Amino acid sequence: MSDAALRARAARVIPGGMWGHLNAARLPANYPQFFTRGDGGRVWDADGRDYVDLMCSWGPVVLGHRDPVVEAAAARQAADGDCLNGPAPVLVELAERLVDRIPHADWAMFQKNGTDATTTCVTIARAATGRRTVLVASGSYHGAAPWCTPVPAGTTDSDRAHQLRFTYNDPASLGQAADAAGGDLAAIIVTAFRHDNVVDQELATADFARTARALCDRHGALLIIDEVRAGFRLHRGGSWEALGVRPDLSAWSKAIANGHPLAAVTGSAAHREAARCVFVTGSFWCAAVPMAAAVATLDQLDARDVIPHIERLGLRLRQELGALARARGVGLRQSGPVQMPLFLFDDDPDFAKGFAFCAAALDHGAYLHPRHTMFLCAAHSQSDIDRVLHAAECGLRAVRRLG
Amino acid sequence: MSDAALRARAARVIPGGMWGHLNAARLPANYPQFFTRGDGGRVWDADGRDYVDLMCSWGPVVLGHRDPVVEAAAARQAADGDCLNGPAPVLVELAERLVDRIPHADWAMFQKNGTDATTTCVTIARAATGRRTVLVASGSYHGAAPWCTPVPAGTTDSDRAHQLRFTYNDPASLGQAADAAGGDLAAIIVTAFRHDNVVDQELATADFARTARALCDRHGALLIIDEVRAGFRLHRGGSWEALGVRPDLSAWSKAIANGHPLAAVTGSAAHREAARCVFVTGSFWCAAVPMAAAVATLDQLDARDVIPHIERLGLRLRQELGALARARGVGLRQSGPVQMPLFLFDDDPDFAKGFAFCAAALDHGAYLHPRHTMFLCAAHSQSDIDRVLHAAECGLRAVRRLG
Repeated sequence: MSDAALRARAARVIPGGMWGHLNAARLPANYPQFFTRGDGGRVWDADGRDYVDLMCSWGPVVLGHRDPVVEAAAARQAADGDCLNGPAPVLVELAERLVDRIPHADWAMFQKNGTDATTTCVTIARAATGRRTVLVASGSYHGAAPWCTPVPAGTTDSDRAHQLRFTYNDPASLGQAADAAGGDLAAIIVTAFRHDNVVDQELATADFARTARALCDRHGALLIIDEVRAGFRLHRGGSWEALGVRPDLSAWSKAIANGHPLAAVTGSAAHREAARCVFVTGSFWCAAVPMAAAVATLDQLDARDVIPHIERLGLRLRQELGALARARGVGLRQSGPVQMPLFLFDDDPDFAKGFAFCAAALDHGAYLHPRHTMFLCAAHSQSDIDRVLHAAECGLRAVRRLG
Repeated sequence: MSDAALRARAARVIPGGMWGHLNAARLPANYPQFFTRGDGGRVWDADGRDYVDLMCSWGPVVLGHRDPVVEAAAARQAADGDCLNGPAPVLVELAERLVDRIPHADWAMFQKNGTDATTTCVTIARAATGRRTVLVASGSYHGAAPWCTPVPAGTTDSDRAHQLRFTYNDPASLGQAADAAGGDLAAIIVTAFRHDNVVDQELATADFARTARALCDRHGALLIIDEVRAGFRLHRGGSWEALGVRPDLSAWSKAIANGHPLAAVTGSAAHREAARCVFVTGSFWCAAVPMAAAVATLDQLDARDVIPHIERLGLRLRQELGALARARGVGLRQSGPVQMPLFLFDDDPDFAKGFAFCAAALDHGAYLHPRHTMFLCAAHSQSDIDRVLHAAECGLRAVRRLG
């Protein structure tokens, strides 16, 4: 059935035709809503068109769609059991894997959504300190629960009580927020890098990261890194390792199991007791199949040296696309780590350029996003990047035609 | 590896050795923490012991562990793709299935956790009404997010702001709470039946259900039924259908996909716009494999006439176990719908009797729970009930030995 026919059916039984971040109504008109297939670095829409997939399901797909090693591990576990009356042994194996690879981690707990993990971190920090105030960067996305959803419809001011804002990468504003919290500071929660929608992405500066750590130490508060989006693509063991700064708690999800539904919280020994005393749970949080997929994913990330691979491809894409844009006199801003790029255009307040660029690229076989972090994966090849560059060149021509 | 060895490893890398409701430390000492296999109505622990499974993974397993029809549907979808850049066509098929079978439902949205679904219902109700106050029954479990977790550690009073309590099945207390909310009443949220932990379960009375509906109508508020635990076991299309009362919104999860991770909100046409305008989402909420499993599960529930089957088995269990207890002079209280029983003992304030009963039953091959709703599934047979009754007889002897 065609994408158009599926959308017509969906309009009757799903409010707005689709909810949340996967609603294609937020994208140029030629974007598909429905997908029928994924394989490696490619996806197919319901109309049978295939694309080099630079969204990777908005992050989860880090090895490639339907990775054979991960799927075999999942199938082996599924043949025994998935959702049982308690966890399977693979729970312990996975927790040990995370404790081994993540320097700050002495323990792990598992959930389903990234939002479950960030919420659990905040809950543990409040339990650990007996305080309430959490510092959150303006514009940072930590999930879609009432305390953090970027759209306030249906939430109350109470849902966002005991939060103070600071500016990402601005140590002074962080210090001011910590001062304002005073003796009630429970935690600072911060994304691994600044990946807010529709603004240029920024890696955390060393000064900012060290300030966050020092403020938490001085106030007896917990530093939480939200690794949900960035985790496993920047560094093997924690996105701030390169800065020499370690958190007390980290929230993980998305890429942890190559698309299987799983999230995790890791924490340091000092906060083990607080983690034990909070009550967080879900019907599927101990399901074994996603955990088996996660063990395989983590092992394959190392075995295939995935981070250097996606860095190489991402660097090539950034350099060659930058050259193409300069040659055409198009003001293109590429930001973020090369393996998680964002493309924005100068003087593009209504995203007309971004939409024209992405719509043309889509028509030439590259699935890009005009406003959101994109993602490379292990299955992407140099020939996929060739195709993306060709599609992007068509996109740049479309931008030029806008005048 | 043995359960004991796994527990020792888990103690090092997981706070308290396990989190949440699956922590076996809350159960008699002979209960296993780790499970290696499920098949039909049985589970196997890490020590190789098998049990007739009367927990069914705390509800999700409604057809049986590793149901071949459901697993085949899941595998077919997995061979194409699971977590893609948007939903697969099966999303529409599943939403249509729910709208077809649930009389109040004109639309559906999908999540991962039961808590996601209950939270989404509350958010939609607040968006629909522009009000804040939600009435919640004392002792009812609606999930483990800060607004509803039964353990306040790490949460704040603000998380539970704008909630008023009433007593389940007490129309007068419900009316008083609605009066107290006054013009700010957004919703009444109520479980399909009273299945609070450690107290006798109660079906909703017609008077209570009609009062809830009438109060919502009078105040312009929304009636939310939390079907997470009860859904798909009591009635094909909604647990209050037998009472002639329909909600505005329902929250579903657990049994919807026979153990695959999925939750759903269904709603009536009047609240479609509110559902469209809230922002709720998650990385795995559109994953196609659990939706394919859900379509197969719903179809099989009908094709195999599952509800009458588990009612028959549950009724036999209730009657024969009741006779056994009476014959031995043991004050056993069986409550709840027969297909979701709870066993409690008279004069058992510290659960010594319940623990002795369940520990002995476990040693004789029946996995029961001393304090929580249990669950029957389609794969259970009369010979499984024979085994449960034999194990329960051993349990009753253990209770007698307590004096």
